[in-house]
Parts: sequence; structure tokens; C-alpha cells
Amino acid sequence: MQKGNDIKLKLTPLGGMGEIGKNITVLEYGNDVIIIDCGMAFPEDEMLGIDIVIPDLSYLDKIKDKIRGVFITHGHEDHIGSIPYLLRRMDVPIYGTKLAIGLIEKKLMEHPIITPKLIPVNFDDKIEVGSFKVHYIRSNHSIPDAACLAITTPIGVIFHTGDFKVDYTPVRGLPIDLQTIAEYGKKGVLLALSDSTNVESPGYTVSEKSLTNNFYDLFKKAKKRIVVATFASNVNRVQQVVDAAKIFKRKVVISGRSMLNVVQVASDLGYLDISPGLIINVNDINKYKDKELVIISTGSQGEPMAALSRMAASDHRKIELKEGDTVIISASPIPGNEKTISKVINQLYEKNIDVIYDKMYDIHVSGHGKQEELKLMLYLLQPKFFIPVHGEMRHLKKHAELAESLGIKNKNILVLSNGDTVEVTKKEMAIVQKGQSGNIMVDGLGIGDVGNIVLRDRKLLSEDGLIIAVMTIDRSTGAVVSGPDIVSRGFVYVRENEDLMVQSKTVVKATLDKCLKNNIKEWSAIKNAIKDDLNKFIYNEIKRNPMILPIIMEVKSK
Amino acid sequence: MQKGNDIKLKLTPLGGMGEIGKNITVLEYGNDVIIIDCGMAFPEDEMLGIDIVIPDLSYLDKIKDKIRGVFITHGHEDHIGSIPYLLRRMDVPIYGTKLAIGLIEKKLMEHPIITPKLIPVNFDDKIEVGSFKVHYIRSNHSIPDAACLAITTPIGVIFHTGDFKVDYTPVRGLPIDLQTIAEYGKKGVLLALSDSTNVESPGYTVSEKSLTNNFYDLFKKAKKRIVVATFASNVNRVQQVVDAAKIFKRKVVISGRSMLNVVQVASDLGYLDISPGLIINVNDINKYKDKELVIISTGSQGEPMAALSRMAASDHRKIELKEGDTVIISASPIPGNEKTISKVINQLYEKNIDVIYDKMYDIHVSGHGKQEELKLMLYLLQPKFFIPVHGEMRHLKKHAELAESLGIKNKNILVLSNGDTVEVTKKEMAIVQKGQSGNIMVDGLGIGDVGNIVLRDRKLLSEDGLIIAVMTIDRSTGAVVSGPDIVSRGFVYVRENEDLMVQSKTVVKATLDKCLKNNIKEWSAIKNAIKDDLNKFIYNEIKRNPMILPIIMEVKSK
Repeated sequence: MQKGNDIKLKLTPLGGMGEIGKNITVLEYGNDVIIIDCGMAFPEDEMLGIDIVIPDLSYLDKIKDKIRGVFITHGHEDHIGSIPYLLRRMDVPIYGTKLAIGLIEKKLMEHPIITPKLIPVNFDDKIEVGSFKVHYIRSNHSIPDAACLAITTPIGVIFHTGDFKVDYTPVRGLPIDLQTIAEYGKKGVLLALSDSTNVESPGYTVSEKSLTNNFYDLFKKAKKRIVVATFASNVNRVQQVVDAAKIFKRKVVISGRSMLNVVQVASDLGYLDISPGLIINVNDINKYKDKELVIISTGSQGEPMAALSRMAASDHRKIELKEGDTVIISASPIPGNEKTISKVINQLYEKNIDVIYDKMYDIHVSGHGKQEELKLMLYLLQPKFFIPVHGEMRHLKKHAELAESLGIKNKNILVLSNGDTVEVTKKEMAIVQKGQSGNIMVDGLGIGDVGNIVLRDRKLLSEDGLIIAVMTIDRSTGAVVSGPDIVSRGFVYVRENEDLMVQSKTVVKATLDKCLKNNIKEWSAIKNAIKDDLNKFIYNEIKRNPMILPIIMEVKSK
Repeated sequence: MQKGNDIKLKLTPLGGMGEIGKNITVLEYGNDVIIIDCGMAFPEDEMLGIDIVIPDLSYLDKIKDKIRGVFITHGHEDHIGSIPYLLRRMDVPIYGTKLAIGLIEKKLMEHPIITPKLIPVNFDDKIEVGSFKVHYIRSNHSIPDAACLAITTPIGVIFHTGDFKVDYTPVRGLPIDLQTIAEYGKKGVLLALSDSTNVESPGYTVSEKSLTNNFYDLFKKAKKRIVVATFASNVNRVQQVVDAAKIFKRKVVISGRSMLNVVQVASDLGYLDISPGLIINVNDINKYKDKELVIISTGSQGEPMAALSRMAASDHRKIELKEGDTVIISASPIPGNEKTISKVINQLYEKNIDVIYDKMYDIHVSGHGKQEELKLMLYLLQPKFFIPVHGEMRHLKKHAELAESLGIKNKNILVLSNGDTVEVTKKEMAIVQKGQSGNIMVDGLGIGDVGNIVLRDRKLLSEDGLIIAVMTIDRSTGAVVSGPDIVSRGFVYVRENEDLMVQSKTVVKATLDKCLKNNIKEWSAIKNAIKDDLNKFIYNEIKRNPMILPIIMEVKSK
């Protein structure tokens, strides 16, 4: 028989470690399992053609029947984006604050999932499921309704900060509930998991409210249309823009699909306060003078298909920007997006539009706490054990150092990789199984059908294109009855390089003759010979390595 | 007859406008032409498989016989990288300071160019060529021997700053020659062209010397090996590391081809002062203890093939890094490289190596002046006309605004695009021809043979791969005698998607039958039908758009 205190708590992050994206952590205690968050990630540069990346959820299949619920900290894609893929595998209840649940509902409409169990919770609610009691604690982040989770287990309290910052003067709602957090700390926290995103930044993240006057200034100065691009989910930022629009007597146009979605959900649920008649339909835009309009738009990251990029490229069906208009990019570049944003900024400047962005004006604050806030959190909680989460390796390691500098013992801090399983008792915390939880790539409807071989081919094809050498051979005689023909794509501009194509054909012919002479009849051998010879020839001629694809068709002579 | 004062000065930038890269400006006066710089650029993200980008030099073909010389401001690739491509088209003398000429010589060794005319000049030299007198004035930049050019022409002085900053305490050499610059200003400058790179940054760039103590601190603390990654051409930075190595009794290993090249050229020419015996061969690395070694390496931008990236990935043939080693990345990310650098940093952290980079420590300063230095330059020169150079559109426009704020008249400032031709007289400056000078892409040995069609194909191939439908048809009967076969690359993992392949074949067969039935015999029509049908089928099945390539082989029935 198993005694109560023999049961160890197991913790397994399936994502979010060594990356900013696809956060998901599994907690197991005896017959009860809960999951914290279930997010997606955007593809890395080398994942050519991939739409999104989700965590490998196969770990959950074995423990499916024990899962009591998924507890969502907030409604960002890197915390909710994989829920549709989880619900395809198993039917589990999803808990979250109202806005998160609203956004999940919206998301699930695009997926064929029947009657998901979505359970909205309020701050201060404590949800008991099996051995776990999950307490939703009010936090601050770049989306409303973000929560820290204090999870009471038979061996102690596990505290998960979610994504957080400390905003004493938020634009709407209340500051993070530091008192309750302190209370947990005072009573004793066994293990804390805390957001590492901004651990490299000294100081603290300034309040969302500090932007208000800057928006007013910019609205005051603007003579024609104003476009504000920001993250759709940054509802409080949208509120600020809407408020400024009202004060400066401008109507608001919402542009971009995700912006329309979020504004609708957030308004319906009471997270956005918009006066009736303030928002106008984009089709009515020409009924208003330029200085009577503000456009709130997606595209703050320079995404090529987003509304702002289309406006910058004069490719937007409804909105045309002109000299003297003002574009405010109210966001920081996510690492990797610097060049696409820069391209949009340059295009706007080319139209003589006033562009206001990060380097010039305080028009954005981060959603994540910086060093001083991370210290405050750790000091209030004073956990016995600490696991930094939500960060690349550099962030996790730095956060571990920060925790150590605050007095948490080195041996009580673990930097994990995705898929690692940690066992926690009242006295010890240790990795019991090294993980290898991978990325599952989603491309179109295919989930996980694109792997390294396919990606390697896409990379090869993207660099030097391909050359196909195709021929029809008589099965019985081995004689070439048609071809060889050379077809290329993405290699050179064929019309101006006829010579190279003709010579390539000659090379393949010579190879075929050689094979025939040496009595090489096996197709794979012939194909390899063609590959080698053509490869060598092309590289010598032009120093490129296209993919070479020999295709042999077979006919029977009658 | 043409009177002297009727001749207008023409200025045409063929690169460097609206971009940071491939700087080249053409100055024409009557029968005399000079060129300032002749650089290359790195490819944009969408230029798949492209190695480098060079300016379109065809403009020069018409005026080839008038070109009196190319005047190089300094030895960076974006100022010298296209010289080999220029010298293939025409034989013109190249002027530059010693280090620049040394680097050009090294570069030309890799190209089959016979006896280039390379002419080293000293600061304060005034080179008279035709109607132009070019005065080399000492400057400061992130490579030694950078120059401003004061070009006296019959209509006045054209002042080109090159890339510059103001360093009153450079590590070697002297500060920028502000007195001579001021003297030109006092006498009167007709037109100034000035570096716009850092116009978005307030303040001034701190001295290279300010890094010295930080390097000492880091060397003092380091317990094992130290790796310093920086730009190869940053000779003064290399000098700083070499000096610190000497003081802390460490031997120096140089790693990376471009680092070896530059260190050799710079040492030979006296720009690097290295005690005999200080540098050891990488093959002798194991003869020394870890704390007796410093490795100066390429790869500060996370370039996948560079030495540091190989060390981080445990893929370097000679150097293995271990726990406790220190890596100092003494460079800032060039926009677009953030993610690759981050990857290297994360890999190093994973090995428990101490990584020191930009956000944590002052271990890098820019080579370009910030707002206060740009103002100083413009105030000293007080030019009548101003053209901002060396910047993206956002930088050029901001620099134009800055100049206006200093009292230069708006109508006397021009923001140009590559290929624009400007006419300058003593009284006026105006664009007389709008340019369309493009990018020439170099891929392997091919110069300009990859254009938009090829790039579009590479992009398509990179996203969803391709499907080839190949069949052999009897020319006389129209009957299919072999195939259709389906071959795919970069599309799905075929072994796990046999069904999709078999179904695709069925689709193509059905299309062929349909064509036969409807008496469609033209191959292009058959191919289009296959493309359409297969495309539709695949998209319905899996929501992907691979390139579809039908190939029809033809045999004669006997």
C-alpha cells in the first residue's frame, strides 16, 4: 500500500523552457494531473513553410484519464494556442479568467471540436480538483485578466507567476495582488515558477498609464489621419487609444482580423469601454475628414499580411495613407522581427508619413516585469525551491542567478529543458528523467508530417533551386527512348542560360552512355551517377549546388 | 562652345541610399568622373540563396573613359566589396589609405584580375585628377585609416564624411581632424554628404578607450579560456584584446578566416602591435592551460559558419569550449541578426559557459557618430547643400530633419534614391533624373542571373516544396505509355503519406483521361489541367500549395 507522504509530486514542462513560446507545464500527484497553460509558438527561421509550432502532447496520452483540468493563466497565444490540438486528443475541462475563456471560445470556432468544457473563473476563486486546489490571483500583464496561480498540493504550495509585471496604476483594473502573494510567502511556498522574459533588463517596467500623456501629445500634433498599430490582445492599449480618440474628437476604425476579433470579445465581456458611435465601419471611412479619424490596426511586428504592412505597401483594400498622416507603432520588435518592421517604417517614410516608433517616443511598455519586479516576487514568495520559466536558456540561467543572489540555495534551483520530469518532495527537488520533448510543426492541416528531411529539402530548394533530369528508358533493351530532358526551377533564369541547360543535357547523355557501356543497369546506380556528374559539372560552371533529381520512366518495347 | 561656368556638376549614388550597404557615388564634371567607394551589401531575407548584392554598374559603362579614379573612404565591405566586379568591367585606378588598399589587394587575390592599379594615399594628400582635387582627411571609425573626403571642384567643395564618429581618445592613431574640417567649413562648403547610420540615437558615441577597463575586469575574473568575438575589421578592438592578453599573461589564438586575413594585413602594415610570440597557432592550443589562452574569433553576428558558432555547436575542429570558459561578444547585433546571435548565446549557456554580451556590460561601441556628432559635423561644415547618405529611408529622412533644425534650408536638402542624378550649380541643386538603379544579385559565379522569377520559385519551393507529375506519352496515339508517376520533395514525409501520393496519381490519371476524352492534345493545355486539378486536390486535402510541375515525355511508337 502506498502511504500518502510517499507520493511524490511530478512536474514536467512540455514547452516554454529554453524558448519564449508554447508554455505548458504538467503537474502530477498520484491519480491527479493538472496542466498549466497550453500554448503555441511561432516557427523558427529554419522551419521553412511551417505555420505554427505546438508542443509534443504525446506525454499526456498515457495519463489522459487522470487529467483534472487545464488551468490557463491568460489569453495570449503562447498560453492558449495549442488548446485545439489538445482537445483533439482528449476531452478535458479548461479553466481560465473570463477574457481568456472568451478568446479560447473564439479560437475553437475555427476547429471542429464539439462542446468543449470551458469554465470561467474569477480572481480569488479556488478550484479544487483531486489533490490540487488552484487559486487564481490577480496579476498585471499586457492583456487584461492575467493571473498568478497558487496551487496547494498535499506536499505544499506550488506558485506559478504566469506572465507578470507590477503596475501600481494600470489603465483599467487593479494592480497585481501583492498582498495575497505575500500571504502565501509568509505561510510558506514550496516551489515557485516565475516569468524570466525580462530578466536581462535592470530596473522595473513603467506603468501603462505613463503612456497616456504621450498619446495625447501625439494626437494633439497630428494634422491628418492617425494609425496606431499594436498587438490585438493589448486591450488596455486599445482602450488608451480609444480614450484619446474620444477626447480629440476622432472616430475609430478597427483594422485587421485579429484586432476585430479581440475588440469584439473584449467589448462583449466588458474589458473595453467604448462610447456608442465612436467606432465606425471601415467602409464609411471616406465620410469623415482625415483629422476626424484614428485607425487601430494590426501589423506592429511588420507581418507582411497584416493591415499596417498593407497600408505601407499601398496594398490595403480600404485604407490609403497619404503625406502628413501619422503612424504610431505602439509595440517593441519581438527579436527576429526587426527587419520586417524596419521595412514597413521605411515604406511609410517614403510616403512622407510621420512615423512614431520605439526609439523616438515612449509609446510602449513591456508586459513583463524587469529585474526589480522579479526580485520583489521572489522576495515576497521566499520559496524553498525555484524553477525559472518562460525564457530562452540565457534568461533561465540569469533568473537562476538572480534567485541565488536573493538567498535561494543553488541546489534548490533547477534550470529545465522541455520534457524534463522533476520530482518534488517537501525536502528535495530533482530531475528524475531528462526530457526530449520536441516541436511538432503544423503546416496547413498537417500536424507533425513535416520533419527534418522535408525541412532539409525545403532549405536546399530555397538556396539554389533544383534541376530535374528526366528520361524514358526501354525496360528490355536499356535504350533511352525519350530524353534526357532538363527542367529547372529556382536555379537560373533559363532563357538567358540556354547554354548551361544544353550542356547539362550533354553531361547526362554522357553519363547514360557510360552506364550503358559499363553495363550498369540498376536504376538507383544510374541515378546516382547522373547526380554526381551533373552536380560536379554545375558546381564547376557556376558554383551552385541545386538539388538534382534524376527521374527515369520505363516503357516496354512491344 | 561650352563655357566653364555652364558645366554642371552631376552626382549619382548607385548604392547606399535607402539602405546600409553597397555605398557608391559617382561625381561627374565635364569630361571627368570620379567614384567615391564601391561597396557590396548582404542579401535581404527574401533573396533566397543569394551570396552578396552589388550595385548595378551599367551606368558607368557609358562614361567609362572619363573615370579618373575610385576614391575609397575606408576598408569595410560595404565600401570596397564591389571593386572586383567594377574592375571586371573597366580598368580604373583605385585610391585609398594604406589599410584599405591592403584589404582590397587581399580581396582581389580571389578574383582573376590582372594588375589592378591600387594607389595608397596618406592623410592630407590631395590627389588631383582632371577637374577634381580629392583631399584625404583623417577620421574615426570602427576600422583604422578611415577618411573624410574634401573634393574641390570648379564650382565649389563637395565634402563626403565617409563613415565617421568623433573619438577624442582613440586606442591607436589620432582623433578625427576637426580642425581641417572646420577650415573647409569656414572657407565654404557647397555640398556635404554625411553618414546617417546613427541619426536615431541621441547623444554621442563613447570612446573606444572606455572599453579598456571593462576588458581588464573581465580578464581578471575569467578562470579558464576566454573567447572574444568581434568584427575582423575592428582592428583597434583586436588590439585592445591583444593588449589585455599580454597584461594578463595569456597567449592569443586567432580563429576564423576573415580574422586571420585582417590580422595579417593589419600587422604587416603596422596597424596592429603584437609582441613576438604572443600569438600561437591553433594547433598548439593544447600545450597551454585554459587560463593561459585568449581566442579572438569571428562570429559575433551568429553567422552559422563562423568560428564562434562552430564552437557553440561543438562543431569546431580545433577548439572545444567547456564549463567555466568565458565568451565575450564584443559587437552589437546588426538588425536582422538578433535571432542567430541569441541562438549562439543560448547554446553557450547550455554548456555552462559565462557569456558576456551587449546587454550586460559595455564591451562594444559603435563606429558611427550619434546625433551630437552629426550636428558637430554639419555645424563645422555649414554647407549650402546637404545630402544625407549611408542609411535606410528612415535614417535619411531623420538626418534631413536634423540638418534643417541646424539652419540648412529645406529646399537645399535632398533625400535621394539609388540611381537618382542630381545636378549641382553654385546656386541650385536639383534631381534631374529619377533613378532606378537596382540590386544585382550574386549567387556563386553567377552575377545577375538570378532575378525575380527565380527568387519567386525559390520562395515557393521553400514554403511547401514541390510535386512532380511525370508521364510518357506516345506522340502519335496520345496514349500514356508510362506513368503518371508522382515525385515530391520538401512537401510531406512520403513514407508516412503513401495514401496522399497514391491519390495524387489517381487525380492525374483522371485528368489525363478527361483530356483524352475531350480531345485535348496540346501539351501545355494538358499540363495546365494537371496543375489545376492536382493543386485543388492537394489544397483540399492538406491546405498546402506546393509547386506542381507536370513533365510530359514523348515517345514515338514504331
